[in-house]
Amino acid sequence: MLERTDGGQAQPALIVGSIGLDTVQTPFGSVTDALGGAASYAAAAASFYAPVRLVGVVGEDFPSPYLELLKARGVDLAGVEVRSGRTFRWSGYYEYDLNTAHTVSTHLNVFESFRPRLPEAYRDSPYLFLANIDPELQLSVLEQVLHPALTLCDTMNYWIESKRKHLLAVLERVDVVLLNDAEARQLCDTTNLVAAARSILGMGPRAVIIKKGEHGAVMCTGRSHFSAPSFPLEEVRDPTGAGDSFAGGLVGFLAYAGDPCERNLRKAIVFGSVMASYNVEDFSLNRLLSLTPELVLERYRQFHDISHFEQA
Amino acid sequence: MLERTDGGQAQPALIVGSIGLDTVQTPFGSVTDALGGAASYAAAAASFYAPVRLVGVVGEDFPSPYLELLKARGVDLAGVEVRSGRTFRWSGYYEYDLNTAHTVSTHLNVFESFRPRLPEAYRDSPYLFLANIDPELQLSVLEQVLHPALTLCDTMNYWIESKRKHLLAVLERVDVVLLNDAEARQLCDTTNLVAAARSILGMGPRAVIIKKGEHGAVMCTGRSHFSAPSFPLEEVRDPTGAGDSFAGGLVGFLAYAGDPCERNLRKAIVFGSVMASYNVEDFSLNRLLSLTPELVLERYRQFHDISHFEQA
Repeated sequence: MLERTDGGQAQPALIVGSIGLDTVQTPFGSVTDALGGAASYAAAAASFYAPVRLVGVVGEDFPSPYLELLKARGVDLAGVEVRSGRTFRWSGYYEYDLNTAHTVSTHLNVFESFRPRLPEAYRDSPYLFLANIDPELQLSVLEQVLHPALTLCDTMNYWIESKRKHLLAVLERVDVVLLNDAEARQLCDTTNLVAAARSILGMGPRAVIIKKGEHGAVMCTGRSHFSAPSFPLEEVRDPTGAGDSFAGGLVGFLAYAGDPCERNLRKAIVFGSVMASYNVEDFSLNRLLSLTPELVLERYRQFHDISHFEQA
Repeated sequence: MLERTDGGQAQPALIVGSIGLDTVQTPFGSVTDALGGAASYAAAAASFYAPVRLVGVVGEDFPSPYLELLKARGVDLAGVEVRSGRTFRWSGYYEYDLNTAHTVSTHLNVFESFRPRLPEAYRDSPYLFLANIDPELQLSVLEQVLHPALTLCDTMNYWIESKRKHLLAVLERVDVVLLNDAEARQLCDTTNLVAAARSILGMGPRAVIIKKGEHGAVMCTGRSHFSAPSFPLEEVRDPTGAGDSFAGGLVGFLAYAGDPCERNLRKAIVFGSVMASYNVEDFSLNRLLSLTPELVLERYRQFHDISHFEQA
């Protein structure tokens, strides 16, 4: 974990979402039943910055070594339920255009009846990331946390279409929303991303962060606009989990820094980009789990160099 | 024109390319036979930074007020030939997705037999921008300049397909190549922009600048990578000429600064982005021609603020 130089302590970050088994093929290789799920990626990424509490569900078939990998990163697994039945599984492939995931199959299995229940000790979590799950479940988690310092949520096209009303209720209540460019355009029915961001701000959150994959990320607040670059990678082996690693690094850094001011939000977006850029270098969580704080800081400095230019 | 604070002088920038009459429709309005053409946009944008010499051709029908507009910006028109016949005309429209231009008609007219001939006084031009024209013509201009300090070229999908051999000969000879993301992918037959940029560097130029529209621009050299943001515009009235304004601001600033080091190349890309972001706020060259050095500097500072984040 990164150490604060001022002697302060990173606060706990609570992450709620899917834990799954992914079968993925890309032009650079494949994996079968590998550790996956939005919350797994986010938890592993966040664990470099802050103590992480994880809430999710797995089936009896979930390989215990995968839980050990997260535990070894210091992730608190008291909120991970093991249910009778099979674990959530996703199978998909990417062609040379790695921007588009082609889904072969999605089996919700035990995830279908997932009703997140926070252990009593989690209810005071100051930082909360609601990964991409049914907005009704996101709302139920928001009911269970006591007085969080900062709440963030992700979402996806499916909920924008099928559960818009509940999603809007979530947006009214969270501080920061993360979504990708296609989702932002879809949610606001506009092609202009800046107009979309402004429109989402009007729905409640005080910051909107739009993930643009190879084009980096942007953040809009009522008073500012920030554009973060992407890292120039010649080879992306597996884009799965990029957005979730981004979110994990982001919420993890905010829990580490302790003050979600503009300055720290910008740094958090870059730390999120660092985690995402590493994550896509290998399948599953392999790269994330082999990182060190030194490698994280090294790439942060590279991001700084990539986007730096002098004042006029 | 911007003034150098060190007492130094901006060098002349020579711009060669099309001058035309555009008929454009967008969801925000339309113009008929408006001043257009890549070299017009580039010359107007560059004129804020350096003395500009323009080489192009127009027909007898070309409205003299348009030439006066450029002259009023200090653009040297000794290289603009007036030929018998009609001026180059482009007609097109944009739908709500302003990223895609739909061409209705292209009439080359006098541009069809354009053979750029540099006035003797232009041959010592230290800065040269070859706007998007037939690479054979670009080569002929490179033959006519004596010993330029810096040469830059643009191109388009049509030449990549139909004149690849000549285009490669141009790339071998110029210092900097500008192209958009789709063109970079097409030229190198890869979806990965970083791989494309590296591959283009192998073709000769020492810097490759890829324009990504609403996603900003990136520059790759053998030793560095730079990512510039785009300006957050909620309303783009007419994207025509954005890339040419970008190129004009870029070459203009380099001619102003006098040393194409990494530091100045980065600043030049941001000044180019400033000109492009203003240009799309109105039709034709209307916005460019109403700018002031103060407005240019103000937006440059906004670009700096948009992309700034602290070191870790």
